[in-house]
Amino acid sequence: MTPGSTALGHVRDRVDRALQAFVGQQRGVLLAAGDDLRPVAESIAGLLAGGKRLRPAFCYWGWRGAGGPDCPEIINAAAALELLHAGALIHDDLMDASDTRRGQPSLHRQFEARHAGRGWHGSAEAFGMGVAILLGDLLICWTDEMFHASGLPGAALRRGRPVLDRMRTEVFAGQYLDLLGQAAGDETVAGALRVVEFKTAKYTIERPLHLGAALAGAGEGPAGPDGGPHARAALAGSGPAGGDGSLPGSGTNGGDSSLAGAYTAYGLPLGIAFQLRDDILGVFGDPAQTGKPAGDDVREGKRTVLLAIARRRATARQAQVIDRYLGDPLLDEAGTAEIREAITGTGAVAECERMISRHVSEAIAALEGAPMTGEAREALAELAVAATARDG
Amino acid sequence: MTPGSTALGHVRDRVDRALQAFVGQQRGVLLAAGDDLRPVAESIAGLLAGGKRLRPAFCYWGWRGAGGPDCPEIINAAAALELLHAGALIHDDLMDASDTRRGQPSLHRQFEARHAGRGWHGSAEAFGMGVAILLGDLLICWTDEMFHASGLPGAALRRGRPVLDRMRTEVFAGQYLDLLGQAAGDETVAGALRVVEFKTAKYTIERPLHLGAALAGAGEGPAGPDGGPHARAALAGSGPAGGDGSLPGSGTNGGDSSLAGAYTAYGLPLGIAFQLRDDILGVFGDPAQTGKPAGDDVREGKRTVLLAIARRRATARQAQVIDRYLGDPLLDEAGTAEIREAITGTGAVAECERMISRHVSEAIAALEGAPMTGEAREALAELAVAATARDG
Repeated sequence: MTPGSTALGHVRDRVDRALQAFVGQQRGVLLAAGDDLRPVAESIAGLLAGGKRLRPAFCYWGWRGAGGPDCPEIINAAAALELLHAGALIHDDLMDASDTRRGQPSLHRQFEARHAGRGWHGSAEAFGMGVAILLGDLLICWTDEMFHASGLPGAALRRGRPVLDRMRTEVFAGQYLDLLGQAAGDETVAGALRVVEFKTAKYTIERPLHLGAALAGAGEGPAGPDGGPHARAALAGSGPAGGDGSLPGSGTNGGDSSLAGAYTAYGLPLGIAFQLRDDILGVFGDPAQTGKPAGDDVREGKRTVLLAIARRRATARQAQVIDRYLGDPLLDEAGTAEIREAITGTGAVAECERMISRHVSEAIAALEGAPMTGEAREALAELAVAATARDG
Repeated sequence: MTPGSTALGHVRDRVDRALQAFVGQQRGVLLAAGDDLRPVAESIAGLLAGGKRLRPAFCYWGWRGAGGPDCPEIINAAAALELLHAGALIHDDLMDASDTRRGQPSLHRQFEARHAGRGWHGSAEAFGMGVAILLGDLLICWTDEMFHASGLPGAALRRGRPVLDRMRTEVFAGQYLDLLGQAAGDETVAGALRVVEFKTAKYTIERPLHLGAALAGAGEGPAGPDGGPHARAALAGSGPAGGDGSLPGSGTNGGDSSLAGAYTAYGLPLGIAFQLRDDILGVFGDPAQTGKPAGDDVREGKRTVLLAIARRRATARQAQVIDRYLGDPLLDEAGTAEIREAITGTGAVAECERMISRHVSEAIAALEGAPMTGEAREALAELAVAATARDG
C-alpha cells in the first residue's frame, strides 16, 4: 500500500465488508418476492464490489477528527453513503447514456442486453431504462436503511440526519444545474465551477466530513485533542440531544463549530481539485485504470471545467477541433488523439494542474490549527493527495 | 362530505397542510443553490397539491387503531409517504411514457416542453427525462427527511423504520416483476395478481397500516380498547425500545401481533380490490375524474388483472380486438369504444366487480374482533368503501 492510500485503504476494506453484509441481507428480502429477483441482487452486488469508497472515508475521518472512536458502527453509517452513490451512478449513466461503469456494462445496458438476449416483448432499451430507474431508487432508499441500522445511538443519528438530508438536496441541485447548463449552452468556467461546488465538492467531501462530525457530536463547540466529551458520550448514547436541524455553514466558515468550518475550508477546494483530476482523466485517462473508454467525457459532451478553460484559451483552430468532436458518439481513436492535442495545446491541462496543486495546498493548510485529532489531520492530508493524484 | 369519505377527508386536509409546510421549507434549500431552481420548486408544489392521500390515511388509522392519539406528529410521519409516492409516480410516468398526471402534464413532459419552448441545446426529451429522474430521486430522499423530522419520539421512529424500509424494497420488487412480466409476455391472472400484491396491496394499504401500528408501539402485544400503555408511552417517548428489526408477518397472519395480523388480513384483499377498481377506471374511467386520458391503460399496454381476465374469457374475435388496440399509442375514441365493448363482452368487468365486492367484504370482516379501537374500525370500514367505490 502506498503512503498516499493508507487513510483510504484502512477504511475501504471495512466498508467493503459492511456493504457485502448489508447487501447479503437485502438479497433475502428481494428473493422473498420471487426467484425472478436474482439478477437484480447479482447486479447490485457486482456494482457495489467496485468503487474508491471516498465518501465513506471522508465521513469516517470526519468522525475521527471530531474525536469519535474507531468502531464498526461508524463504518456502517459511512458505508451507507456508498449506496446513495451507487444509486446516483446508475441514474447518471442512464442520463448520460453511458455504456460502461467500473469496467462493466452500465446497469441499463446489462438489463437491455438481458432483454435482447431472451427475445422478450417490447423495447429492450425501455426495459433497461425501467430497471435502471427502479434499481437506482432502491439503492437510494437503502442508504437510509443502512444508516439507521448502523448501530450508532439514536442521539447520534438524530444529529447526523439533517446533514445527510442537506447533502442529498444539494447534490440534486448540482445535478439539475448541470443539466440546465448543458441545455442552455453555458460554457463559462464560472458556471462549470458552480456545478462542481454542489455536485462534487459538497457531496463528495464537505458534507461527508460534516456528517461524521455531526454523528460524533461536534458542532456544539470545539473538540479537544481527543475529541472532548461530546464524541465519547455520543457513542455511549448519552450525548447532547442535538437534532435541532442546525447545520454547519454552507460554503462558508460560519456556523457554531470551528471544526465544521475547517472541514468546509478543506473540503470545498479539495472537491474542486478532485473534480479537475476527474476532468483530466475523462479526456486523457487510461481505460484500464478508469474503467471507462478513452475520451469518454468528450464522446458524452460533458461540460467540464477543463473544457470550459480550454474553450476560453483556444485559438479559432483549436476551438474548431473541440467543437468538431465534443458530443460525437462515434468519436474514434484518431479523433480522441486530435482533440487531446488541441486541448493540451490551449494550455488548459497545465492550468488545471496548477489549479489542482493550489487547491490541494489550500485544503491541507486549512487542517493546520483546526480543532481535530492529530491522527485525523494526517489522514485527511493523505486523502487530499490520494483523491487528486490518482490515475483512475 | 359523503359518509364514505369522512375517514379520508379528516386526514387529507391536514396531510395537505403538512406537505405544504415541508415543501415550503425545502424551497429555501433549493433556491440557496440558485434562482434557477425555481421551476423545480414550483413543479414539486404543483404535483404534491393533488392526490387522494390514501397511504397517509392508512398509516394514520393504523396508528389510531393501535391506540395512538390524534396529534400533528403522526400526520407529519404519515404525510412523508406521499413524498415517496410522488417520487414513484414521476418515475412511473417516465417509464410508461405517460403524458399526464393528476390532470397536468407529467413531470418529464413539463421539462421537455420547457426545453423545447426555449430552443435549448440537445434533446428536449433527454432533458425532460433527466430532470424527472433527478426530481423523483429528490422526493424519495425527502420521504426520510420528513419522516425523521415528524416530531415523533426517537423510540417510535426506530420501531417504524424497518416497516418503511421493507415497504420500499417490496414496492421495488413489485415494479420489477411488473416490467419483467410485460417483457416476458406473462398474460396470466396469477402473474398479474402477484404484481398487485407487491406493487399495490402491500405498498398502499398493508404496510402503511403496519407503519402506523409500529410507530404507536403495537407488535409487542394486543392493544387494549384505548391502545394500552404502549401507544401512550410511545408518544411520550418512553415506550418499549423496539427497533429490533422484527417485522409483522409478510402476507400472513403470523407474527407476534394480532393487530398487525388483522391489518394484513384487511389490507391484502382490500389492496387487490383497490387495484381492480383502478384497472376498470384505466379503461372505462372519465378523464375529468381520473385526470388521465380515456383508455390510457390500453394505450400504454398495461398488463392489468382486468385484461388478464378478459383474455382468459375472450372469444377469438374479442381477443383479436384486444390485441389490435392494446399498446397502440395512437388509440382514438372509436378504438377506445371498440375495445371497451370487447372487454365488457367477455364478462371480465362483471367478474372484476364481483371480485371487488368479495374482497371488500373480506377486508371488512377482518376488522371484526381485531384488537383495535372502535373509532379506527369504523374509519377503516369507511376507507375500504372509499378506496374501491371511487370514480377517479
